[in-house]
Amino acid sequence: MSFHQPNQRTEHMSFRQYKATHVLKGLATTPYDLTKEGNLSHERIERYSAQAGDFKLLFGTERINDDVLYALKELAQEAHLLEKMEAMQRGDVINKIDRYPCENRTVLHTAMRDLFLHENKGKNAQNATSKARKECDKLKDFLLRVDGKKGQFDHLIQVGIGGSDLGPRALYMALKAYQLPNRSIHFISNVDPDDAAAVLKNLNLSRTLVVVVSKSGSTLETLTNEEFVRAKFKAAGLDSNKHLIAVTGQGSPMDNRERYLESFYIWDFIGGRYSATSMVGAVMLSFALGFDQYVNILKGAHEMDHIALEKDLHRNLPLISAMIGIWNRNFLHYPTVAILPYSQALIRFPAHLQQCDMESNGKRVDKLGNPVDFDTGPIIWGEPGTNGQHSFYQCIHQGTNVVPIEFIGFRESQYNEDYIIKGTYSQEKLLSNLFAQSIGLAKGQKSDNPNKVFPGNRPNRILLGKKLDPFTMGSLLAYYEHKIAFQGFCWNINSFDQEGVQLGKILANRIIDRFAAHRQGKRGEKFPEAEAMLRHLESL
Amino acid sequence: MSFHQPNQRTEHMSFRQYKATHVLKGLATTPYDLTKEGNLSHERIERYSAQAGDFKLLFGTERINDDVLYALKELAQEAHLLEKMEAMQRGDVINKIDRYPCENRTVLHTAMRDLFLHENKGKNAQNATSKARKECDKLKDFLLRVDGKKGQFDHLIQVGIGGSDLGPRALYMALKAYQLPNRSIHFISNVDPDDAAAVLKNLNLSRTLVVVVSKSGSTLETLTNEEFVRAKFKAAGLDSNKHLIAVTGQGSPMDNRERYLESFYIWDFIGGRYSATSMVGAVMLSFALGFDQYVNILKGAHEMDHIALEKDLHRNLPLISAMIGIWNRNFLHYPTVAILPYSQALIRFPAHLQQCDMESNGKRVDKLGNPVDFDTGPIIWGEPGTNGQHSFYQCIHQGTNVVPIEFIGFRESQYNEDYIIKGTYSQEKLLSNLFAQSIGLAKGQKSDNPNKVFPGNRPNRILLGKKLDPFTMGSLLAYYEHKIAFQGFCWNINSFDQEGVQLGKILANRIIDRFAAHRQGKRGEKFPEAEAMLRHLESL
Repeated sequence: MSFHQPNQRTEHMSFRQYKATHVLKGLATTPYDLTKEGNLSHERIERYSAQAGDFKLLFGTERINDDVLYALKELAQEAHLLEKMEAMQRGDVINKIDRYPCENRTVLHTAMRDLFLHENKGKNAQNATSKARKECDKLKDFLLRVDGKKGQFDHLIQVGIGGSDLGPRALYMALKAYQLPNRSIHFISNVDPDDAAAVLKNLNLSRTLVVVVSKSGSTLETLTNEEFVRAKFKAAGLDSNKHLIAVTGQGSPMDNRERYLESFYIWDFIGGRYSATSMVGAVMLSFALGFDQYVNILKGAHEMDHIALEKDLHRNLPLISAMIGIWNRNFLHYPTVAILPYSQALIRFPAHLQQCDMESNGKRVDKLGNPVDFDTGPIIWGEPGTNGQHSFYQCIHQGTNVVPIEFIGFRESQYNEDYIIKGTYSQEKLLSNLFAQSIGLAKGQKSDNPNKVFPGNRPNRILLGKKLDPFTMGSLLAYYEHKIAFQGFCWNINSFDQEGVQLGKILANRIIDRFAAHRQGKRGEKFPEAEAMLRHLESL
Repeated sequence: MSFHQPNQRTEHMSFRQYKATHVLKGLATTPYDLTKEGNLSHERIERYSAQAGDFKLLFGTERINDDVLYALKELAQEAHLLEKMEAMQRGDVINKIDRYPCENRTVLHTAMRDLFLHENKGKNAQNATSKARKECDKLKDFLLRVDGKKGQFDHLIQVGIGGSDLGPRALYMALKAYQLPNRSIHFISNVDPDDAAAVLKNLNLSRTLVVVVSKSGSTLETLTNEEFVRAKFKAAGLDSNKHLIAVTGQGSPMDNRERYLESFYIWDFIGGRYSATSMVGAVMLSFALGFDQYVNILKGAHEMDHIALEKDLHRNLPLISAMIGIWNRNFLHYPTVAILPYSQALIRFPAHLQQCDMESNGKRVDKLGNPVDFDTGPIIWGEPGTNGQHSFYQCIHQGTNVVPIEFIGFRESQYNEDYIIKGTYSQEKLLSNLFAQSIGLAKGQKSDNPNKVFPGNRPNRILLGKKLDPFTMGSLLAYYEHKIAFQGFCWNINSFDQEGVQLGKILANRIIDRFAAHRQGKRGEKFPEAEAMLRHLESL
């Protein structure tokens, strides 16, 4: 038997067939008891930690022990997770389902930021990077041109939805502290006409740039909102062609220099939910923060891309986080994961991760097209702490469903503006609360009053960084991208397509036709369930 | 046996002991199959609907049939849900756990808006309403005073957390289309110093009012942020006492007219998460929208309070929604609920409902103090559509966990600004997508390509309104408050306390002390797990 054949076979093994899966199933019958006196010790918190780049991951408050960690490491090896990460980063065709029509593409968001220390040797990766470099150069020139001495524009509207909105918006909000003076950024995403109307109200359009983002150049919401915006420019006596910028696929219907000030390109090897570091986020972020800060985001992401290739589990932060997530999901059987950043600036980061994780791993067939017989991607949700503590933490402490938690915290604040109030800085109060929740959820509390009993054993881990700046934010983004990819690799599903969004689009187009028909007084039974809903609507 | 005794007993029956519970358990073995050809018919959508006030609830896309509906109605009767709602609204002491120390309070948020058609006859309710009326009058006078001809203030910052933030903020964002000219509203909630720093940057404090909201007058985050804000006023050479307004309990440490321009009162019979229609939301909302629009919110809420007392299940929208939720939670065993409003203005409404629902019903003991042996409140999450369609809908269509969905939609847009683009208005496209998702999730899709198979049978319902305005928003808020209360009544848990937040507070205070000690160079082993976390932090 050649070396290649067994490898081929294991690559297509189902998650349930791995040896480590059986070991872990056994271990899950008696998970580590964090509530037992002495079990959550100083030493445990010290030891169950990992460091890489500017981050530390503390996972002593997870329900694991050395046996579980060892088996998770075995599982990572059996499932060839590092090899698959290498294959992704060098540009193998991994976005596919064998034997069935599929996208059949490479997955190269990492190539968008492979401009620094650790150049990938893969030919596809290098081709992608040279394309990315070209767009970066074009962007730099463009910014100098529009932003010259005159300072022609101070507003920018990003028009896009899904990956063209959530990732870029999360990054922008995370880094608003670093915004250039006299810059104001707005977003239009929803086809709800009130989204565009609210943004465009009172905006000085003569000083406004609009970045329209759609890879295909055919996204319903985005094209509709583009026309909405163009109508507003026209009403203000302005030529929209002089204000709109296209970010789209080369040769798409939007790649038309007569209608846009400039076109920036993305390619089919950049998935929407992995596109924030491509031109999809670059134009807006560079305008808001300056081109150099955008480059810092890329540098941070690039560093984490490299960490994701690290063979030592204790230095590969996204891998260790992915494997603990697999333990919680497939062996302790928890259906959701809460992402709780103790940083108000990360307010929209959970919404980005909802897309990145749930659209990647919310799948029901494996890469051979077989329905899976185990759980794939969990439901992702979350809000910043300490706010959440005054909201849903009651439920995560004392509710009947256990919620695994991924906390995120930073040693320093962004604005460097803080006061000692009653003996401590606000930043210290913030971090005290983070640590308190982590310990409290794990240890629980006994009481004679049943309403004051906290069952504990609520697993959680903390990702700690020094300060949320552009570099760190790039790393944080890539940390989650790779955590998600590793989990998809482990389940042997295709994390890079999204067939599950198609049915809704098809049905919506049929109903749109019914609306148009109704407005013209035409009834019909072409889509009876939808007609019934329309009648309910009209009776209001 | 008197009439009273059996009633007393059943009031304390456990959820699992009801006859209807057993019937429903049986019915849940073969839930209605929405994917079967012809099963999701025009007639079903027509018939499985309910109307009250300005709303329609469509629930033909739930996995129910007449037998299930009948049994749910029986369950509502056995569990005395209407009697319990009456008891709440008239002011019985229902916030309690028998035999254990507890808050022992009435629950009278409905009395805050009982100023209109259907006056409650309960003595406690009437007392509460007369207090509310007094505060409303005070607010009206106050607004005339500060807002006179001079127009002294155009910015307002709401400082509060949890219920003092989420509900008011959700209402404000929902109704921003109705904002008065030259009004600008900001929020500071998180103890993260960057939250305050970001808001206060570039704000003209001389024209800024600050509403500080804390019922106890002792909330860590809020008092800290108040001092933060006061420091900024001082640095700007302004007297903060002339800009700050207190919303607090009478006699609390914050009830001090020397330090505040005015004090508005709340009482211990208003839970934080049910306080948006009290002075907690009133001051900010009246400043932003005008006092009359605040009154319209109250009118809408009051109408829904009255609907929640309706004996006919098909007219009691919150009750029917609550019972279908119980079916999904306790009989079909789904751990989460997604709230998906097809209205960008409702972007923060799911975050409010996260608190309102999960803090109310994320409980593990019943009202006798016995640990429950069934599931209580689910995990609540959600984002507006159509945005979510380009994010997590992949997972809700094809993921391995089923997510029950509560859609919300409106016939008309808020700004009345819409264009026909490719044959239809944006509002029509929005609603087409809403209906398409509801039908697609229910019916699913067959395919020879396993990756294009949609299993369907993903239960969902749609709440439809005419237009999101202050009145409707008040109704929508109360609809959810009562849905949540009904579910708590059915599970016989106390939905009005929050013991689960206490442990974190105690531990955080201990760690805050360690931070202060570290800063002074003092180490110690007083809280070894926390010390280990601090050392990790310091090593970054």
